[in-house]
Amino acid sequence: MRIVVLAGGIGGARFLRGLLRAAPDADIAVIGNTGDDITLFGLRVCPDLDTVMYTLGGGINEEQGWGRANETFSVREELAAYDVRPQWFTLGDRDFATHIVRTQMLDAGYPLSAVTEALCARWLDRPDDGRGGPGGAGVRLLPMTDDRVETHVIVDDDAGRRAIHFQEWWVRLHAQVPAVEIVAVGAEDAKPAPGVLDAIESADVVLFPPSNPVVSIGTILQVPGIRPAIEGKTVVGVSPIIGGAPVRGMADACLAAIGVRTTAGAVAEHYGRRLLDGWLVDEIDAGTTAEGIEVRIRPLYMRDVDSAAAIARAALELATELT
Amino acid sequence: MRIVVLAGGIGGARFLRGLLRAAPDADIAVIGNTGDDITLFGLRVCPDLDTVMYTLGGGINEEQGWGRANETFSVREELAAYDVRPQWFTLGDRDFATHIVRTQMLDAGYPLSAVTEALCARWLDRPDDGRGGPGGAGVRLLPMTDDRVETHVIVDDDAGRRAIHFQEWWVRLHAQVPAVEIVAVGAEDAKPAPGVLDAIESADVVLFPPSNPVVSIGTILQVPGIRPAIEGKTVVGVSPIIGGAPVRGMADACLAAIGVRTTAGAVAEHYGRRLLDGWLVDEIDAGTTAEGIEVRIRPLYMRDVDSAAAIARAALELATELT
Repeated sequence: MRIVVLAGGIGGARFLRGLLRAAPDADIAVIGNTGDDITLFGLRVCPDLDTVMYTLGGGINEEQGWGRANETFSVREELAAYDVRPQWFTLGDRDFATHIVRTQMLDAGYPLSAVTEALCARWLDRPDDGRGGPGGAGVRLLPMTDDRVETHVIVDDDAGRRAIHFQEWWVRLHAQVPAVEIVAVGAEDAKPAPGVLDAIESADVVLFPPSNPVVSIGTILQVPGIRPAIEGKTVVGVSPIIGGAPVRGMADACLAAIGVRTTAGAVAEHYGRRLLDGWLVDEIDAGTTAEGIEVRIRPLYMRDVDSAAAIARAALELATELT
Repeated sequence: MRIVVLAGGIGGARFLRGLLRAAPDADIAVIGNTGDDITLFGLRVCPDLDTVMYTLGGGINEEQGWGRANETFSVREELAAYDVRPQWFTLGDRDFATHIVRTQMLDAGYPLSAVTEALCARWLDRPDDGRGGPGGAGVRLLPMTDDRVETHVIVDDDAGRRAIHFQEWWVRLHAQVPAVEIVAVGAEDAKPAPGVLDAIESADVVLFPPSNPVVSIGTILQVPGIRPAIEGKTVVGVSPIIGGAPVRGMADACLAAIGVRTTAGAVAEHYGRRLLDGWLVDEIDAGTTAEGIEVRIRPLYMRDVDSAAAIARAALELATELT
């Protein structure tokens, strides 16, 4: 079975770990959001790609869901001692190594897709460890594009109306300053990375994990060519909204910016029936409907790999039924 | 009193710490060797400048004489896990931060001299700590040039005759493969960094610490304009050779490459009377003479800051006498 998953960071990564458990023999291509990417201290940081890579490869900090396990923070301490800005984005030493390798390869002329493949050779090219733990075999991680797309947030507060990088809004301001608009700068001129359209083309099913519908999946869908390719496929999504609130993160602040209510049903209708065929909502959202979309009720809290696998299994079953 | 010191790495840095103790009110300009600089993992590393900066600023690893105290090595571990080469050059996490800041500033267009000044604002712009420890107040660290000069070593072994970066010869091969020739690539077209010639011009005395006469002080002297400027000054040097062997490092392998014997006297004559006015040799080298150069005998082992200060004091006394 060929599966394509559009993924942001933590929610997408945890869903994927469940999907690997649910469909160990599937051929899975992950199309990762790169709109959150940021250059810090001269190094290219791809938070969503790395969260997927570290999570599937067993290197993630399980408690916080991003960054590396057994991390140290010497580089960060030193940068602060040099009074280098910004200091609001936390990068650990192990994580820095990934960005150093990535930046060196990008500077040498390799496109991000090739760099991602090289990095993933360490994390994903290995058999499942057999203990039910992570194991990324059978997964290809593709950035949505090799072109530069950068999600900017237009805010308007006492400091005036201005565009700031998504990470500044998300990490530094905790999305507390309302977003007037969210813009994926460069998206309209971007091309899907090599392999992206082919993967969608040959997919039996496309899954939307409970990633942010605006700044993760929404950004991927803005790369020309990706949305129309997906519209021709059987697509099942998992609601990132449970009981009127995002399971984690601040998706509500993003949804508000595009005028979508923070409910499981509103998100499904935002994706729309042309895109979405099936939609999983949590038990608390029983009664949710979305026009032209098959809604199923399942427990959607991913407490561990088992619960994530159950959700992935339900998504695959619904997709099979709808095909 | 205005003092200019030409410095390589460990020997120069430890001498400077003694000099600061011996002449706390002096205006000291250090002209640092940059021929050892190397780009690793896309980051610009300046081993000699950093050794001086860390030593005077109290951040050095005292035991090994280079690198940072309280260092961690997570980045290095991760780079190895990614199988990134080379793996023979050890960089700690704290040290990496310096190279990240430097590279970001260089990429932004600042010359190395400006970058060095910015980095030194952390390490050298502070009063002596009053406990006799390091304190870099009154010291300006100037790279010899803002241009790229790279010391290459021509070796000829089973793998054939070839040029390798100095660091590969020094660190990876431990200078065990004989050097056929040592070449400071780019030196002939280099210009002294801003402030270098002015510092020499206004100096009352120029000191050569016990740094490597070939690949440290010798490289600095190859930058056009520096040698003639120094020739007009009172210059006193401290022999890096004691009893026919380098105090540390592998200066003998470098001296062999340029046909100079590893003795205190031969090094003095290699510098020559046009450059050198006075020369300190260790007690074990009593009897050393060098034509036209005033030789003085002093204990030259720098066991601690006190012994380094005594050597610096002797150098200054000899310089005053010869002026």
